[in-house]
Amino acid sequence: MSETFKIAIAGLGTVGAETVRLIQENRSLIHDRTGKKVEIFAVSAKNKNKDRGIDLSGVEWVEDPLDLPDREDIDAVIELIGGAEGPAKQLAEKSIEAQKPLITANKALLATHGMAIAEKADKNKVPVFYEAAIAGGIPVVKTIRESFAGNRLTGIFGILNGTCNYILSEMTETGRSFDDVLKEAQDKGYAEADPSFDVDGMDAAHKLSLLITLAFGFKPDLENMCIRGISDLNPIDLVYAVEMGYRIKLVAKAYYRDGALSQNVIPRLIPEDNIFSSIHGVLNSVLLDGDYIGKNLNIGYGAGGGPTASAVLGDIIDCARGKYFPVFGVPCGALCHAEKISLGADITRFYLRISVIDKAGVMAEIAAILKEEDISIESLIQRGHDPGQPVSIVIMTHKASASSIYAAVEKISACQFITSEPCFIRIEDLVF
Amino acid sequence: MSETFKIAIAGLGTVGAETVRLIQENRSLIHDRTGKKVEIFAVSAKNKNKDRGIDLSGVEWVEDPLDLPDREDIDAVIELIGGAEGPAKQLAEKSIEAQKPLITANKALLATHGMAIAEKADKNKVPVFYEAAIAGGIPVVKTIRESFAGNRLTGIFGILNGTCNYILSEMTETGRSFDDVLKEAQDKGYAEADPSFDVDGMDAAHKLSLLITLAFGFKPDLENMCIRGISDLNPIDLVYAVEMGYRIKLVAKAYYRDGALSQNVIPRLIPEDNIFSSIHGVLNSVLLDGDYIGKNLNIGYGAGGGPTASAVLGDIIDCARGKYFPVFGVPCGALCHAEKISLGADITRFYLRISVIDKAGVMAEIAAILKEEDISIESLIQRGHDPGQPVSIVIMTHKASASSIYAAVEKISACQFITSEPCFIRIEDLVF
Repeated sequence: MSETFKIAIAGLGTVGAETVRLIQENRSLIHDRTGKKVEIFAVSAKNKNKDRGIDLSGVEWVEDPLDLPDREDIDAVIELIGGAEGPAKQLAEKSIEAQKPLITANKALLATHGMAIAEKADKNKVPVFYEAAIAGGIPVVKTIRESFAGNRLTGIFGILNGTCNYILSEMTETGRSFDDVLKEAQDKGYAEADPSFDVDGMDAAHKLSLLITLAFGFKPDLENMCIRGISDLNPIDLVYAVEMGYRIKLVAKAYYRDGALSQNVIPRLIPEDNIFSSIHGVLNSVLLDGDYIGKNLNIGYGAGGGPTASAVLGDIIDCARGKYFPVFGVPCGALCHAEKISLGADITRFYLRISVIDKAGVMAEIAAILKEEDISIESLIQRGHDPGQPVSIVIMTHKASASSIYAAVEKISACQFITSEPCFIRIEDLVF
Repeated sequence: MSETFKIAIAGLGTVGAETVRLIQENRSLIHDRTGKKVEIFAVSAKNKNKDRGIDLSGVEWVEDPLDLPDREDIDAVIELIGGAEGPAKQLAEKSIEAQKPLITANKALLATHGMAIAEKADKNKVPVFYEAAIAGGIPVVKTIRESFAGNRLTGIFGILNGTCNYILSEMTETGRSFDDVLKEAQDKGYAEADPSFDVDGMDAAHKLSLLITLAFGFKPDLENMCIRGISDLNPIDLVYAVEMGYRIKLVAKAYYRDGALSQNVIPRLIPEDNIFSSIHGVLNSVLLDGDYIGKNLNIGYGAGGGPTASAVLGDIIDCARGKYFPVFGVPCGALCHAEKISLGADITRFYLRISVIDKAGVMAEIAAILKEEDISIESLIQRGHDPGQPVSIVIMTHKASASSIYAAVEKISACQFITSEPCFIRIEDLVF
């Protein structure tokens, strides 16, 4: 029972350092629970002399992480370097080729090169664990691959980017601008110096893509995913949303029907009494829908040193227990291609904001266009304004086809009385 | 890769029948995902001729479930008979003695005889899986034993009984009486013909006890758990709770401090903007708090054929993959005894309803008693009444020690102007 599992950690940023701390601090607990001693045998990072607040005495420092996979005294390689290319990719490939189990927190690598990595892992029969890559504090990879393995999963609905959720929560609560809140998030360490990957929706898209492949068995197809971030959201829409009883969230959503896949990361309005409206700040959430399990929703911290280190350690323990899975749950050969269900095929309720010049006949014209497109109005507000300023007309529609909304917006955009491009956002009525 | 895993199912009630259906319906999916064929070799139940809507052709019918463990052609026994004693207990014991892996959905058995079963399983090195026993649609056993294995878990907070949650949700939303809603729940199949086990809090207590042992490593100690159900809740308190911005939920809660354990299942007021207030109807939820993972909340269906069958199948697949864990995550010898933290040691906000005769000086007397006990009032409502009828005074306190509240309630109860026993309920301010 006292077997030692020897690991090498490449990358000692926040997650790497916290993983070291966790393994050292909870050493006896891990041993009691698993019968294994997890020992950090070697580490590799850019700067040996940086103070990371962790004790690396007795741990070998290796200059080149690519030297780690070949070492016979190491049982698994933990890749925490990050990035879709460069040393992270090389290390992953080399580990698999050397038949050394790989544990990674690198969603960009897996979302970009997942198929190639999975094929290599299949060929070499090497396990690749990546719980930390998707909402670290939520054990969704294990849940899909193991707990719900007997279910036909049919839907995924997630808030997968804590940075965006934090920014939207703060903007909604305080009425502050995107730029202002972003700056604060950067100061607090919730957002990167270059936040574009998060706020443009790409990070959430990477995670959703991995979940789709794992849960549905479709090959990754990021190019056919509709991705829209939060940086061009107008704060006024967050205000109107609240006034109408909603919150705006960046939602990652996927489902399939007749072998075709709908996958998108876009802002959506959520009714304020819906549970997803209660997921504030840097929290992440993943809802899975399966044929027997029904709906299951998990909420936790998607990023940060502690939760991510916990996920990495969970994978290390699984690996020490000798677990093996194909990367995406089934061998690559069993993954199939899905046709695309476009967002235009949606039938849902919509939020529509139209900025107009205040003059007689405008409402009649808008109402006529909506009627032409068979769009029925559920509620409408028109706000008083300063003289000479445009008026906002905010409409919540009954269920309508997205293509009708697109057509109506195009017609309205062409009207003389319009002062800016109309804004439309889907309303999500997911019931739980 | 085409290895067949042969199981025997004892008990063909809702869960048993649904497990059969799931294994048959998703047969190829299970094979693709696990590389295993799960085959039902034998079943045993009371009545062979009952129509359960499932196809049992080609499955051997065994009259006595106790004949199953000894059979060499069976890889695992699935106990879905239920009940803490009788054939379920005998079957569990015999399976373990025959070194046949056991999968069960039986929380009563495990909560009552868990230590004896775990000791037997340790001795025989036989795995016992029971994901379906605790909130079937929530994979909490796996999450604790595997995903969070490297965490020191410090808190559990759950809504663990769907029947109670459904009844409270309906009473709150419709203003109907407990008996009326209970009857409806029975008609819908959400409550048993004898509902006492659910509504008295015992079912939730069993689940909490198992979670405590798994997560904290304390020996089961149901006798020292404070358990109060929902059957004696006065509907008026649900109404006042809503009026003050709260919902009443039956909460299972545990934490430990300095080797001592607080464990209880009692009704609590939850602020309406707290996420736990959004957990309606038959849903269950489990929040775990760990030193690295932080808080993680999982919400899903705790009962019903589909979710429970899904949990049973998840265990069957784990078992087929050759997994082994001690029953409570660590060998029995490593479980320790915890001193009791009594509910009286709580410091929290309280809801207090006092029914009084409407006369001068009553409020002054109550206020004086609260002052004596160092209880500060956050808000108070006194409701107009029909002449001659008692008046309700509803108080939300600031944080106060429970022992002060007990003392104040005792003093108030002794007052002449009291028309019925004062009611006090803890307010839960858990932040997520």
